Order: sequence, then C-alpha cells, then structure tokens
Amino acid sequence: MDLYKYIAIREDWPKDGISFKDITPLLQDKDAFKYAIDKMTEPFINKGITKVICADARGFLFGSVIAYKLNCAVVASRKKNKLPFVGLSQTYSLEYGSNTLEIAPNSILENDKVLVVDDLLATGGSAKALTDMVNRCKATIVGYSFVIELTSLKGREVLNKSPIYSLLTYNL
Amino acid sequence: MDLYKYIAIREDWPKDGISFKDITPLLQDKDAFKYAIDKMTEPFINKGITKVICADARGFLFGSVIAYKLNCAVVASRKKNKLPFVGLSQTYSLEYGSNTLEIAPNSILENDKVLVVDDLLATGGSAKALTDMVNRCKATIVGYSFVIELTSLKGREVLNKSPIYSLLTYNL
Repeated sequence: MDLYKYIAIREDWPKDGISFKDITPLLQDKDAFKYAIDKMTEPFINKGITKVICADARGFLFGSVIAYKLNCAVVASRKKNKLPFVGLSQTYSLEYGSNTLEIAPNSILENDKVLVVDDLLATGGSAKALTDMVNRCKATIVGYSFVIELTSLKGREVLNKSPIYSLLTYNL
Repeated sequence: MDLYKYIAIREDWPKDGISFKDITPLLQDKDAFKYAIDKMTEPFINKGITKVICADARGFLFGSVIAYKLNCAVVASRKKNKLPFVGLSQTYSLEYGSNTLEIAPNSILENDKVLVVDDLLATGGSAKALTDMVNRCKATIVGYSFVIELTSLKGREVLNKSPIYSLLTYNL
C-alpha cells in the first residue's frame, strides 16, 4: 500500500522554510490507518515491551493503538502544565521553537522495556526528550517507531542505539 | 474490573473548585487500559460506524484505539492553529476557560456514521463542539463514548439524542 499519497504537504508552515508533512489524510482513510498501525507495530511484536511512551498530541494517535496491540501500557507524555501530577520534565528544541514534555510520577520503572512512538522524527527533539526521560528512569528502550522520518535532519543520531522503524521517509 | 481505583483525583486543579480526574494510572496499567478500551468500544460494534471523531489531546488516546478496533477512520480534532489545513472551526466553553477545536477539510462527509469519543464529559463543551462540527457536515452521530462522565454537570443534555456510553461516572 502506497502511504505517501495519504500525506499532505504544506510548504512554509508553521513557518517559512518548513515543509510540513500532514498525516491527517492517513488518519482519515480506514485502510491506510490500519495498515500504518500494523506496519509500525510489526517489528516490535514478541519483544517483551511493557510500555509505549508517546508525545502530546499527534504521538497519542499512534502510540495508544500500538500499545493496545502489544497488550502493554501507555505513558502519555504531555506538554508543560497539562499533567496534574508531574514526575519528570524534559525541555528540548524543536525543528521550529522549543517545548517541554512531562510524564507522571512512577510512569516508568527500572525493569520496563519501552517502545518510543511518535508521528515525526525530524531533528529528534521530542523523541530525544522521551528517550532522556526513559533513560533517567533506568529503563530499557527496545526500539522506536515513527510514522515519518525526515532523514536529512539526522534525528536518529541523537537517539539510543536501538532499532528504529520509520513507516515513511523523506530526504529533504 | 474496578477501574475507579485507576483514576487519580487532584483537588483544586487546574483551578480552585475543580476536582480533576486524572486518567494517567488507567493508561499506565495494561489490563486496565485494555479493559477500558474494550468496554468503550463494545456498544458500538456492528453499528456501521465509518469514523471516530476525538479531541486533542487526551481524546486521541482512546479515540484512535476505538477507531482501529472498529476498523474505521480517525478524525483528530485539534486545538486552534495546529492543523495545516482547516475545514471547520468551533469555539466552546470549558469547565474552566474556553477553547477552539478544528477539523481538516472534508474530514466528515454527509453519509458518514460517526462515533464521538472523549476522555471526559463534564459540562459538555468539547463533546458539543465535536457534535456541532459533525452536524454542520450533515453526517449522523451514532453515539458517544466517554471514559468519565461528571453526571451532575449534565453535559449529556447538550448533545445529540444518540446513545451515550460512559465508562465511569462521578456525581459531584
């Protein structure tokens, strides 16, 4: 299934020079959505994953489904001031701007085997922030699963040395 | 399974007088998460649902999984200025403050049968905004599925006359 046709591109959004990859059409086609989820999950079946960590907000759309399919828990990392109880906080740089992600207390334990899921791997900011929080909890990152990787931004170089699956890649 | 013990309460957050119901513990227990999703999906199996609409950000954690299970598409309604292409925009009052939700162009078509999913039914603000957008598209709302309903706030009275399932209810 050619999923690239389910990605809409908006040039110079949210600011000049950014070629934004919009996953909305992929979500809005039931077969494309199912196919995307199944492909993103497949490499991580039977790897003993106990938790999927994903980032507010688009990461939730994929992370929660993959967690359900792997029969594991969801660590929903939220933007600043959204969690009533905060365990860890991690600030990072975005492709455009900066951001803080937080997780609740005791979200991740030392013996957890964690899959990091996000919609986009660009410069690696948010995935690195999730990685840092998992590392601070001394848990193991089993792998990463992304919808889109912008390969030229080399985001994978800032992540842990664990398998990285990207459903779609753009070299730009 | 008693899911109430997986809801953490924080009093007077995010502002005085609000008793915030935190779903984090439910997400972080794999059995509770699976049970919650299965129960929220069950009433809507074989109802011909074509799309699940859910709201940024916590609604995504449930809506996307339920859509996957129902083999239908996801309409991820986002907060203002988050979508690169905006079809409809709807402003509403929250239990605390106000908010705008948006959906992409052509997200919902006239013949769609839609399930509205959200984490919380309080005064009904966000669920009503989702409802209004579906109604503006002249599609059919087959039902609503919520994690938590604060029954005393009578949110269900502002929604369409379609079946409403609430996994957990609080009368306060």
